[in-house]
Amino acid sequence: MTHPRVTLDDMDYLSAGKRARLYRMLYEYGPGHGTLMVLPIDQGLEHGPRDFFGNPEALDPEFQYRLAVDGHFSAIALQIGLAEKFYRTYAGQVPLVVKMNGKTEIPPDDEAFSPLTGTVKDAVRLGADAVGYTVYVGSPAQDRDFLQFNQVRVEAEALGMPVIVWAYPRGAFVEAKGGRDSLWAVDYAARVAQELGADVVKVNFPRIKAETQSLHPKPYDTLTLSPEAAMRQVVASAGKTLVLVSGGAKKGDEDLLETVHLSLKAGVTGFIFGRNLWQRRYPDALKMTQAITEAIRDDVGAREASPSANVRAGTRA
Amino acid sequence: MTHPRVTLDDMDYLSAGKRARLYRMLYEYGPGHGTLMVLPIDQGLEHGPRDFFGNPEALDPEFQYRLAVDGHFSAIALQIGLAEKFYRTYAGQVPLVVKMNGKTEIPPDDEAFSPLTGTVKDAVRLGADAVGYTVYVGSPAQDRDFLQFNQVRVEAEALGMPVIVWAYPRGAFVEAKGGRDSLWAVDYAARVAQELGADVVKVNFPRIKAETQSLHPKPYDTLTLSPEAAMRQVVASAGKTLVLVSGGAKKGDEDLLETVHLSLKAGVTGFIFGRNLWQRRYPDALKMTQAITEAIRDDVGAREASPSANVRAGTRA
Amino acid sequence: MTHPRVTLDDMDYLSAGKRARLYRMLYEYGPGHGTLMVLPIDQGLEHGPRDFFGNPEALDPEFQYRLAVDGHFSAIALQIGLAEKFYRTYAGQVPLVVKMNGKTEIPPDDEAFSPLTGTVKDAVRLGADAVGYTVYVGSPAQDRDFLQFNQVRVEAEALGMPVIVWAYPRGAFVEAKGGRDSLWAVDYAARVAQELGADVVKVNFPRIKAETQSLHPKPYDTLTLSPEAAMRQVVASAGKTLVLVSGGAKKGDEDLLETVHLSLKAGVTGFIFGRNLWQRRYPDALKMTQAITEAIRDDVGAREASPSANVRAGTRA
Amino acid sequence: MTHPRVTLDDMDYLSAGKRARLYRMLYEYGPGHGTLMVLPIDQGLEHGPRDFFGNPEALDPEFQYRLAVDGHFSAIALQIGLAEKFYRTYAGQVPLVVKMNGKTEIPPDDEAFSPLTGTVKDAVRLGADAVGYTVYVGSPAQDRDFLQFNQVRVEAEALGMPVIVWAYPRGAFVEAKGGRDSLWAVDYAARVAQELGADVVKVNFPRIKAETQSLHPKPYDTLTLSPEAAMRQVVASAGKTLVLVSGGAKKGDEDLLETVHLSLKAGVTGFIFGRNLWQRRYPDALKMTQAITEAIRDDVGAREASPSANVRAGTRA
Amino acid sequence: MTHPRVTLDDMDYLSAGKRARLYRMLYEYGPGHGTLMVLPIDQGLEHGPRDFFGNPEALDPEFQYRLAVDGHFSAIALQIGLAEKFYRTYAGQVPLVVKMNGKTEIPPDDEAFSPLTGTVKDAVRLGADAVGYTVYVGSPAQDRDFLQFNQVRVEAEALGMPVIVWAYPRGAFVEAKGGRDSLWAVDYAARVAQELGADVVKVNFPRIKAETQSLHPKPYDTLTLSPEAAMRQVVASAGKTLVLVSGGAKKGDEDLLETVHLSLKAGVTGFIFGRNLWQRRYPDALKMTQAITEAIRDDVGAREASPSANVRAGTRA
Repeated sequence: MTHPRVTLDDMDYLSAGKRARLYRMLYEYGPGHGTLMVLPIDQGLEHGPRDFFGNPEALDPEFQYRLAVDGHFSAIALQIGLAEKFYRTYAGQVPLVVKMNGKTEIPPDDEAFSPLTGTVKDAVRLGADAVGYTVYVGSPAQDRDFLQFNQVRVEAEALGMPVIVWAYPRGAFVEAKGGRDSLWAVDYAARVAQELGADVVKVNFPRIKAETQSLHPKPYDTLTLSPEAAMRQVVASAGKTLVLVSGGAKKGDEDLLETVHLSLKAGVTGFIFGRNLWQRRYPDALKMTQAITEAIRDDVGAREASPSANVRAGTRA
Repeated sequence: MTHPRVTLDDMDYLSAGKRARLYRMLYEYGPGHGTLMVLPIDQGLEHGPRDFFGNPEALDPEFQYRLAVDGHFSAIALQIGLAEKFYRTYAGQVPLVVKMNGKTEIPPDDEAFSPLTGTVKDAVRLGADAVGYTVYVGSPAQDRDFLQFNQVRVEAEALGMPVIVWAYPRGAFVEAKGGRDSLWAVDYAARVAQELGADVVKVNFPRIKAETQSLHPKPYDTLTLSPEAAMRQVVASAGKTLVLVSGGAKKGDEDLLETVHLSLKAGVTGFIFGRNLWQRRYPDALKMTQAITEAIRDDVGAREASPSANVRAGTRA
Repeated sequence: MTHPRVTLDDMDYLSAGKRARLYRMLYEYGPGHGTLMVLPIDQGLEHGPRDFFGNPEALDPEFQYRLAVDGHFSAIALQIGLAEKFYRTYAGQVPLVVKMNGKTEIPPDDEAFSPLTGTVKDAVRLGADAVGYTVYVGSPAQDRDFLQFNQVRVEAEALGMPVIVWAYPRGAFVEAKGGRDSLWAVDYAARVAQELGADVVKVNFPRIKAETQSLHPKPYDTLTLSPEAAMRQVVASAGKTLVLVSGGAKKGDEDLLETVHLSLKAGVTGFIFGRNLWQRRYPDALKMTQAITEAIRDDVGAREASPSANVRAGTRA
Repeated sequence: MTHPRVTLDDMDYLSAGKRARLYRMLYEYGPGHGTLMVLPIDQGLEHGPRDFFGNPEALDPEFQYRLAVDGHFSAIALQIGLAEKFYRTYAGQVPLVVKMNGKTEIPPDDEAFSPLTGTVKDAVRLGADAVGYTVYVGSPAQDRDFLQFNQVRVEAEALGMPVIVWAYPRGAFVEAKGGRDSLWAVDYAARVAQELGADVVKVNFPRIKAETQSLHPKPYDTLTLSPEAAMRQVVASAGKTLVLVSGGAKKGDEDLLETVHLSLKAGVTGFIFGRNLWQRRYPDALKMTQAITEAIRDDVGAREASPSANVRAGTRA
Repeated sequence: MTHPRVTLDDMDYLSAGKRARLYRMLYEYGPGHGTLMVLPIDQGLEHGPRDFFGNPEALDPEFQYRLAVDGHFSAIALQIGLAEKFYRTYAGQVPLVVKMNGKTEIPPDDEAFSPLTGTVKDAVRLGADAVGYTVYVGSPAQDRDFLQFNQVRVEAEALGMPVIVWAYPRGAFVEAKGGRDSLWAVDYAARVAQELGADVVKVNFPRIKAETQSLHPKPYDTLTLSPEAAMRQVVASAGKTLVLVSGGAKKGDEDLLETVHLSLKAGVTGFIFGRNLWQRRYPDALKMTQAITEAIRDDVGAREASPSANVRAGTRA
């Protein structure tokens, strides 16, 4: 059964500015039809150059920019430095998402916090169509994180800039309750994004792991859901917030496409895959991009064939 | 004996803006006659989606919005994200209370602090009739909390926006002195709300527990009061601040209605019950809403029958 | 021997606004003739409602307001919430002092810090004649405290608002050096208030306790002064800052009046007694108020009879 | 094989103000032809006067200013105090780089953080052509560091002021993963500078040390690169950010010139040598300056002879 | 051999406002001829009233004001409270230096930090000719200290107000490296003041103590310098920053005058002696003031007799 996907019409609350920018990404670029395929390249800050040794060409951000243009992505997402220095050449050819915060992986993640590295005004100046912000859900530093996000949200609202939240469960207490990729954690993170006012939320595909499930709060400690049903739950918790599934570390091709299919059926709006794409040589990266695009379009086709699948639960009631 | 209830006339200090907005909630919507029945749906942030599994429909905020409208609530209270995304459909059909702060339950509560997640200007922009703010009374983080509240209070005063304080005793030292739901703690919390400038205060129903009473400061360590008398004490400590009783985790129906009756006799202005209502299927939730509304109206009727009961102690002297 | 008392003419530095407001409290209300009798009711925040059980009527702030008016006090001092909600009825009948900061007693005092709960603009808006600010002299948190006070001082200067400093020695290091009520600590606190720019300082009556005196820095560790001489020392350390003596916990009537007499002879400007007054039934509170007023007036009379007693040491030289 | 060097044309993103200032340093002063030779004198703050005992004349900043002018440096880089007090005499004779932050070496480096000591407006007022900022990459204090840098970056962007980042891996976790001068750390630091929006980055020459290499993340734990190849990797990670190699503590002359040659072949833009120059007597300092200048010019000559070497990898693709 | 002294002409960088104010203190008041004799009275805040028991009259700030006027000091330096309350009477008769920060001695000095207690605008309003700021060089709190100083420096620059830095090595790591009064520490502190942008720096007379010298960084651990040579080194490290020598705790008269003579020969601009003066009875204080003034004038005479001695090393080269 195909689960409904949130549409721009469901998001009737959007200001003209937010709607115009989201519309461009959802309909004018990328796979279109209300879907998103975003290419992230913030790993150089988050992990350092170590991620680029497998495919050394990818060390140069031009690699990802060209891939974003040639692969017809909905947007490319990166830090202010890479936006400032490289977007000009590709300006207008692919929408830009500027990350507002980031950190290195050198200090441990126990009290994860991602400080501001850019401003919404920077994003406007560079012609961006959205800003990105990482919330470390459950971190002991959530105080500062929420306060900082609130400022970004207010500035984005004032400037008509959509906000994509990287909703990452993180920190000592998340691990103590069963881990960052668990359904419990991802589901909570999706809801937090919606509660804090994200327009789009990026989540990991949720996992139910037998070994750590008993650490979760009720009823997650005993829930048994298929992967697709778990993803559906997360999509439901995100409510009117568009859901992007992230790829994480590089996987096998079949695994990746399986994630794509399950996610699409579960009603996500799209994908934000980085290492799974640009850790390949250019032609392979383009090929995989195309495979994902086709999967998205197939899903769009299926949905257009049964329009009722596209009505959100909430408005159905 | 019925205890007097604070009226809008007692609150002669209110600016036109605050009075207009409170008036709407007290008289134009909900049970009316100077009472309040508020539907809160901030648990998605505070507890995560775990609260919605018992009644999965309630995961979609439309459930609570519809209940607020159909159940003729005085207001619905929620975080900026749920206000921004969902209120538009119901705008004007039920007053809106935007929570100004919130947190997840993932880190422990020893040094509880709830960071800002919205602004009073957001609330004005969305047509809200009040803002909500959680003060963790007695937390080691009270410094930051009071400072943050002060900013909200000043901004709310400037914009004529009533302030509802969620006055929650919390943190290691509260537990060491006998616990968050004790009369000592709730009574202190009510007074703090009044001292800091709340217009409305939300408290838990105070409990006197034999096991921990000796931990309280004098004279609470030996006080023996009936539940109704304990609630009356809290109402008196709140002074000219309207008192809302919160429901907490879901209770049995009789317990809940008993709490309602005792509270009303003790002079509270109303209730803010969430899980006790929306953790039921829709028709049951409406039914219970109606039962509470009737209890409120009965109390109003009794008071109108003996007007002297409605004169505040302070002004009586 | 009667010690000189600082007069408004000694305070030649005052701006017109500060002078006008101080003048009202010193001459137009209260015992007059350049003295002060202030009724504080900030204990509801600082201690919680426990202070009101002995005289339950005092739980309602109207009790203290009526007492302030009927007892002809120079001013009533309280938090923003009690000023906002209750002063309107008594506006103009008694001057208002709005406390700018406060805290609960729930966390321990080792690192005492009192965060802002109001603003000078609030005080101006409410028609106040002074603001109050608690400095915890010697607290490990003195950094934040001095910074915060500096902001209040600047804003008060700009708006012509007198500043009364509650100068309270507090924190682990104060205790290690001999305790908060010791002459060493109170004397230091009085000087700190003058150095930081207070117009009026509230201190406890200093005590010399044999048991802990050896912990003091030289020469306090061996000083032997009568109580009156100790108070004179504190008054001298306060310099051109008017000194108010606070009452602390409730004492016996004779003790209280003895404190009054000694303090007056030592040259203080007045008193700020709370629990010692409103922890009595109304007629008793009025009676004790009158007794203190008479003591003040007697002292004024004695000073007018020997005008030379009224010349400040500093200007005498 | 000579590695391409980033040119001002590669930096097509620069605003007119940034371009004008960088152009002056790259072409109008110093060795020219798009190279940089910067004389830093911030060691008086970072290390104290101990660095000047070997050559006592160097204690007086006039020594370094004269050397910067006589040695035809591209710029002199120092703290606000030395800029304010001494630049006026040499204004226009050598470009000025004002460091925006700094610290003493007295507290340990475990949580290294360098607070602001100047503002971009100061730099503009003094006629500077760039500002410098030290980022301690990987420090536990990176939160505050990134936030602070972001403010500098925004202000610099607004005022057309180029930003040179001193990208220094530092702190307990850097040491735990193999140390501050390792290729892993320097490579990461170069990328961080580019991601955060530096225009120029100052790095140490990377070292591969057998003893600590196994502590690095993959693949750095097993990489075997020649020193020149290691430097090339860092230049590549810096992308469109101009790379300056710093000298560190004083070395032997041959070592220093070897570093210069290897760095130039690896494509760096220039050098920022302090102690290696001004810890010599004046004539020796000038002589070594000239030797480096010649090495730079030789490299420029070689590049002009084979123009293809000057095309950046990224734009080649 | 007499060491050159920095003159106002060396300070060619000064804005008109800073020059006018410094000129007044250097030439129009005090011993004149480009020297300074400043009377500090911030000990009431820093140490409490304990410093005044030896000479009780000195508890009243009028004592120091009269001494500053009668003794023809270049300036009196004190906190905002004493400036605000007492300067009016003496306005124009002696220049005023307002301290911008201060603290009590009650918490220990391990992480010494001195929070703001006044603003540059206050100083301007009161007609001051300089502001003072205590930097605790090497304190673990240097982050906050430098940031705070930077704000003061910027505001002072904007308002043409000279900045005098109390450069005090302080904190656990200073002690671990050989102590606050060591040449190493004082020398570093003088340089820090110059690097951060002080116009005048106040230092202690440096001491070389055999017991702790081995704790210093090289080459201080083995340096053998006469007291005068040590002071010369500090003067050289201060560069174009005028040097004031502080007196510290009260010394014998001969010791004090010996310090004066050595310092003058070493090229300092003047003295800032507090307890060594006002811990005497008034006539004695005046007498010692006169003795120091004469020593200064003798030194001026000697310098005028051999003008070459007055050329700064830096400009000589």
